[in-house]
Amino acid sequence: MSDADRQTTGSSGHGQRVAVVGAGMAGITCTRSLVRAGRSVTLIDKARGPGGRMSTRRTEHGAIDHGAQYFTARNPRFREEVNAWIADGVVQEWHGPLATIGSDGLMMIRGDNRRFVGVPRMSALTRHLSASCKTLFNWRVARIERHGTDWWLHEERGARLGPFDLVVVAVPAPQAIPLLQGAPSLAMRARSAVLAGCYAVMLVYDERLPLPFDGAFVNRGPLSWIARNSSKPGREGAETWVLHASPDWSEAHIEEPPDQVIPMLLAAFAEAVNAKLPQPLLAVAHRWRHALPINLLEEPCLFDPELAIGACGDWCGGPRVEGAYLSGAALADLVIAHRDQPAG
Amino acid sequence: MSDADRQTTGSSGHGQRVAVVGAGMAGITCTRSLVRAGRSVTLIDKARGPGGRMSTRRTEHGAIDHGAQYFTARNPRFREEVNAWIADGVVQEWHGPLATIGSDGLMMIRGDNRRFVGVPRMSALTRHLSASCKTLFNWRVARIERHGTDWWLHEERGARLGPFDLVVVAVPAPQAIPLLQGAPSLAMRARSAVLAGCYAVMLVYDERLPLPFDGAFVNRGPLSWIARNSSKPGREGAETWVLHASPDWSEAHIEEPPDQVIPMLLAAFAEAVNAKLPQPLLAVAHRWRHALPINLLEEPCLFDPELAIGACGDWCGGPRVEGAYLSGAALADLVIAHRDQPAG
Repeated sequence: MSDADRQTTGSSGHGQRVAVVGAGMAGITCTRSLVRAGRSVTLIDKARGPGGRMSTRRTEHGAIDHGAQYFTARNPRFREEVNAWIADGVVQEWHGPLATIGSDGLMMIRGDNRRFVGVPRMSALTRHLSASCKTLFNWRVARIERHGTDWWLHEERGARLGPFDLVVVAVPAPQAIPLLQGAPSLAMRARSAVLAGCYAVMLVYDERLPLPFDGAFVNRGPLSWIARNSSKPGREGAETWVLHASPDWSEAHIEEPPDQVIPMLLAAFAEAVNAKLPQPLLAVAHRWRHALPINLLEEPCLFDPELAIGACGDWCGGPRVEGAYLSGAALADLVIAHRDQPAG
Repeated sequence: MSDADRQTTGSSGHGQRVAVVGAGMAGITCTRSLVRAGRSVTLIDKARGPGGRMSTRRTEHGAIDHGAQYFTARNPRFREEVNAWIADGVVQEWHGPLATIGSDGLMMIRGDNRRFVGVPRMSALTRHLSASCKTLFNWRVARIERHGTDWWLHEERGARLGPFDLVVVAVPAPQAIPLLQGAPSLAMRARSAVLAGCYAVMLVYDERLPLPFDGAFVNRGPLSWIARNSSKPGREGAETWVLHASPDWSEAHIEEPPDQVIPMLLAAFAEAVNAKLPQPLLAVAHRWRHALPINLLEEPCLFDPELAIGACGDWCGGPRVEGAYLSGAALADLVIAHRDQPAG
C-alpha cells in the first residue's frame, strides 16, 4: 500500500462500506439515508465543501448564491423534509416579489407558490445536512475500479481510496459517465440525460437598484433569470444580483472568457429591465457546464445491485433541488432493500 | 345571437360554468376534479377525440401509440390514481424489456422501474377518463375573450361558445400563449416554458423484427426512442413499431415533409439496431410540434383568481404524464379553494 492510498476505516462487514461521489443535494441525501440505515459512508467531492450546484460564492461584499436560486416543494416526502429544515433554522421562505420579462415588457407574478432558500446562504443548507457525514473534499475522483468485490476510487494523480463495498455516483450525468465505466449499462443509461450549461454572473452594487422585483424570469435576449440576491432572508452586506444566461446563449458562449461575457450580460441586464444601471463594484462570472437537465431519465435513480454501484441526481427521475433530493432518497431505499444481497 | 353561437346550458350560478380547453391528461384531470366539486364543465378540444399527446393512431393493421409511449408514477396521489385505473382495466404494466443504444452498442436495462400504458391502446385511458365529461370535439379555440365577468371562446371562423365564469387552458405553452391574452401576466409566464418538437414515425411489419428488446432509448444519430408498439399489453394485430426522432433532429427537420423524413428515420432505425430490416408494410409520420417540455415553469399551474382563468400542463411544475396529471389536479384544487371569491 503506497503513501497515496487511503484505507477506509471501520470495515464493519460486507456491504457496509459505501462511497458517495458528489456532495450536492442528491449525494448528501443518499449519504444521510444510508448512515441512518447503519452504513459507513464516505462522502467525497472535488470542491472545497459541499453543495454542488446549491452553492454560494463568498465575496468581500457578501455571499452570493450563483447556482440554484431557490427551491420549491411538491412531493410530500420532500415537503416534510423542508419543514424540518425550516425548524432547524437553515431554510426560510423567500418572499421577494417575482416578475416575468418578455417582449411585452415586465409583469409581476401573482400566486402563492412558496419558494425556499438556505439561510443565511444557499450553501448553509447543504453544509448543515452534511455536517454529520464523514466527508472528503478537494478530492476529484477520476476512475472507479472494481477488484474482486471491492471498489476503489482513483484520483487523477494516482491516489486511491477504498476498498468500498458499494459506490454511489451523485454528479451530473456527463461527469457520471466516465465514473460508471465499471457498470457499462449504467454508463449507457446516463448518456440519455442531457444537461444544458449556464453562464452566471454575480454583481455587487453600492446602492439599491430601483427595480420593482427581487427576481425575474426573462424570456428575451441572452438572460433567463435575474435576481436580487440580497433580498433573500438572512443575507447581509451590499446589494447583490445574480444573472443567469439562458441555456441556448450559455451553450453558444460557454467557451468564451468571463471578461468578454460579463459586459455582454451586463448590457443584457440593462436592456431586460429597460434602465440605465450603475456600474457594479464587482462582477464575477461562473460557468456551470452542466446546470439544467433538459432530458431526464425516467428512472428516479440507477442501481446495479450485483455490481453494487448506483447513480442519482436531478438528471434522473425529476428535475430541480426536489428531484435531486428524491433521487438520492430513492437510491438509498434501493440499496437498503438489497441489503442482504451479496455484492459480487 | 347567431346560428354559430352555442349557449352553455345549466347556468347554475356565478363561478359554476367552466370551460377547459384541451383534452389531454392535464385538461381531463382538471375537468374531473371540478365536476366532482359540483362545477358544470365543458371540455373542448380541436381534435376528434380526447388524449392530446396520449393518443393513438389507428391503421388498417392495428392501432399505434405515436405520442406518449408509457408513463411512470412516483407521486403518491398519482400512484393511487394509476392503481384505480388498473382496477378499472384501462391501464396495465408494460413488461417489455428495454435497452439503451449508444456509441458503445446495445445494452439491456435492468431495474424494477414500473412502466404503465393504456389498454388496449394509450388513448383508451383518456377516453375512459373523459367519458363522463361534457365534451366538445373538433372545435379549435382561436381566442378567449372577456365581456364583463363572462368568458367567451371563439373559433377561427366566428363561432363562439359561452358564457363561462372560468376558463382553464390546458394545451402546450406555445398554443396557450395566444389563448391567455385576456390575462397578460399568465401569457407572459407561459412564454418561459420551452417545448421541443418530435418527429414520430409509425411502422407496420408483416413479421416480427428479431430485436432483443421492446423499447430502446437511443443516444446516437437522429433517433431518441424506438419501441415495439405491439409488445404492449392488449395490443392485437400486426407487428408495429414507433420511432421518435430526438429533439435536436426534430427541430432541424420539423418543416420537412414525411416522404423525405420517413426514409431518413428508417435508415437511422436500421443503423441504431445494426441490422438489415425488412420493408415496412406501412410507414406513417406524425409531427409533434410541441412534444417535450425542456424548460418547465416552477409553478404546478397558473391561476388568476380575479380574472377567473388558469393554465395547466406538463410544461408547468413537472414533466411527463404524471406532471400533466398533477398540474391539472393542482389547478382544480386552486379553483375550488377560490370558490367563494368573486370572479370579476
